[in-house]
Amino acid sequence: MKKLINEPEAVVREMLAGLAKAHPQLAYVEGLEVICLAKPRQDKVGVISGGGSGHEPAHAGYVGPGLLDAAAAGNVFASPSPDRILEAVKRANGGRGVLMVVKNYSGDIMNFEMAGEMARMEGIETAMVVVKDDVAVPDSTFSTGRRGIAGTVFVHKIAGAAAQRGDDLAGVQALALHACGRLRSMGMASAPCTLPGAGKPNFTLADDEIEIGMGIHGEPGVSRARPASAKETARVLLERVLADLDYTGSRVAVLVNGLGATPLMELYIVYNEIETLLREKGITVHKALVGNYMTSLEMAGCSVTLLKLDDTLIPLLNASCRAPAWQEH
Amino acid sequence: MKKLINEPEAVVREMLAGLAKAHPQLAYVEGLEVICLAKPRQDKVGVISGGGSGHEPAHAGYVGPGLLDAAAAGNVFASPSPDRILEAVKRANGGRGVLMVVKNYSGDIMNFEMAGEMARMEGIETAMVVVKDDVAVPDSTFSTGRRGIAGTVFVHKIAGAAAQRGDDLAGVQALALHACGRLRSMGMASAPCTLPGAGKPNFTLADDEIEIGMGIHGEPGVSRARPASAKETARVLLERVLADLDYTGSRVAVLVNGLGATPLMELYIVYNEIETLLREKGITVHKALVGNYMTSLEMAGCSVTLLKLDDTLIPLLNASCRAPAWQEH
Repeated sequence: MKKLINEPEAVVREMLAGLAKAHPQLAYVEGLEVICLAKPRQDKVGVISGGGSGHEPAHAGYVGPGLLDAAAAGNVFASPSPDRILEAVKRANGGRGVLMVVKNYSGDIMNFEMAGEMARMEGIETAMVVVKDDVAVPDSTFSTGRRGIAGTVFVHKIAGAAAQRGDDLAGVQALALHACGRLRSMGMASAPCTLPGAGKPNFTLADDEIEIGMGIHGEPGVSRARPASAKETARVLLERVLADLDYTGSRVAVLVNGLGATPLMELYIVYNEIETLLREKGITVHKALVGNYMTSLEMAGCSVTLLKLDDTLIPLLNASCRAPAWQEH
Repeated sequence: MKKLINEPEAVVREMLAGLAKAHPQLAYVEGLEVICLAKPRQDKVGVISGGGSGHEPAHAGYVGPGLLDAAAAGNVFASPSPDRILEAVKRANGGRGVLMVVKNYSGDIMNFEMAGEMARMEGIETAMVVVKDDVAVPDSTFSTGRRGIAGTVFVHKIAGAAAQRGDDLAGVQALALHACGRLRSMGMASAPCTLPGAGKPNFTLADDEIEIGMGIHGEPGVSRARPASAKETARVLLERVLADLDYTGSRVAVLVNGLGATPLMELYIVYNEIETLLREKGITVHKALVGNYMTSLEMAGCSVTLLKLDDTLIPLLNASCRAPAWQEH
C-alpha cells in the first residue's frame, strides 16, 4: 500500500496540524489531538464529538459555527482517550454545559463517559447522546447494540443548530436524541483499507464479492454478495433502512456517503437511484448530501442514511452553518 | 473493478441527474449533458466550463452563484461535443456575453472554439480562456502545450467572482488570463483508475512505483519513482512548481487536490508539509483548499497548485460563492 504519510505514528498529529493550517478559523491542541474553534463562542451549549481517526472529514471537519465546537481524535480506528475528550469538552465549554455526540462503540462510550465524569469534577456539566444508526447488525465486533456510522453527521447538524440558537443543554440533548430515533443507515463495501503501518488490508474480498452491511472499521456485515448494479445496490441498502422504521409519507434528509475510494460519480448515480425509489414510495427528499462525509481511509463502498424529518428538525437542518466539511448559508 | 454503476453508457446521464436532484438550485439539461443554474441571473457575464466526465466534482459541482453559470459534460475522459457546449453557453447567457474556461486538451479546444463560433452565429458573444497549469510536461498525449488540471478551479473562482460583481466580458476574460499566468500545478499518481466498461485499469504501476507528473487521464509524467514519504513527495511536487514561476515573497492560494482514492487524511498530511515548505521560503498562504476538487475516477495520488495572488485577485478569491463543491461566505 502506497500511502502519502511520514511515520505511521505521526499521521493523526500531522493531519490535524494540516487541517488547522488550512482552516485558520480552527485551532489544533497538539498532544491532545483536539480541533476546536479558534474563537469559541461563549454563552451557548457546547457540542463536541470524536472518535477514531481514519474517518475524515469526521469529526474534525465538522467543527464550525452551527455544528461542532470541538472534536477529539483517537489514533486510527481507536477511541480517543478520556483526557483528549476532556480537553474537547473544556474547549467547547461556554458556561452552559457540553453535549457529547458519540458513535456507539464500546471504547468510545467508556472514554466519553469517563471524560464526562472528569468534566463534572471540574465543574462542567455534560450530557451524552449515543448514535446507533447502522441497521445492519444488532451487535458488532466493537459495539454492544447497533453501530454508529455516517448518520452521525446529521446529529452533529441538529445538535449544533440547536445550541447555536441558544437552546439549553437538556433541550439540545433532547433534540439530538429525537434525531437519533429517526435516523437509520445501511452500508456496503467492495474493497478494504489498510491502516498506516499495518502492511496489509484489514479484510479481504474476492474480485466477485462485496459485503452488505459492513461496518466502517471493516466489521462483518450481514452477507457477502456478487457486485451488483447501482440500482440493485441502492434497492438492497434502502430496503433494510425502510424495513426498520416507517418512513411512509414523510419528508427525509438523505446522505449517500462514500467510504473513501468510491468516485463521486458513482455516489451521484447511487443517489439518483435512491431518490427514484423514495419518490415511488411517496417519501419526499427535503435535503440530500452526497459525498465523503464519514470515510474508512481508502475503503471502497458507500452507505445510505435517512433522517425522518418533522417540523422540529427541519429548521435545525436548514439553519446556517460553516465547517470545512459542511457549509451552508 | 467493482463499480457502483448501471450501464457504462449511462454513467454521465445518471450522475448528472443525481447531481441535479441532490442540489435543486441546479438544473440538468438531459441529452445535452449540461448542468446550469435553475434560476440563472441576467445582466451579468456568464461563465462556463466543461470537459470530460470522470473528474467530479469538476466541472458541474462548481455551478453556482459566484462560480460557474453552466458546465458541459463529455463522456468519461472525452471532450463534450460543440452542441453540448453551445447549450451551456445559451444557459449561461445573461445578455453580456459568456466566458468559456477550458482546460488545454486538443479535443476541448476544438469543440469549445466551434461552440463559440456557433454561439456567435446565434448572436451570443463568447470569449475563451485556456488553462495550462500543469508544469509536468511541455506537450502531452492529448495536448499541444501544457495540460490543464486542478488549478482550473481557481480560474472558475476568479472569473466567477468578477462576473458576479458585474465586470464586462473583456474584463472577466482579462482577470481569468491574469490568474492563469500566475497558476502552476504538479501532480503524482500511485494507482490507476478503470473507465466504466473498460474492464482494466488505464495504466499500470508496480507495487513499488509511483509516477511523478502524471496527467489526470493517466498521461505519462516526467518519471517513475519509488513511493516516498509525504514530506519528500510534497518537496518534489513543490520544487517543480517553484522552479517554473518566481513566488518569492508572495501570497498564494494553495490547492492540494486528491485524484479520487487518496484519503483526506493523507491530503491534509501533504498540505501540512507544503505549508511548512512555503513558510520556510517566505511564501505566505492566504487561502488553502484541501480535498477532491478535480479527480480521475478512483485514481490514487494528488496534485499541488499554487496561485500567486495580488491585490487584484485577493478580493475575487475572497468573494462569497455557493456551489456544491465550493461554498464560502
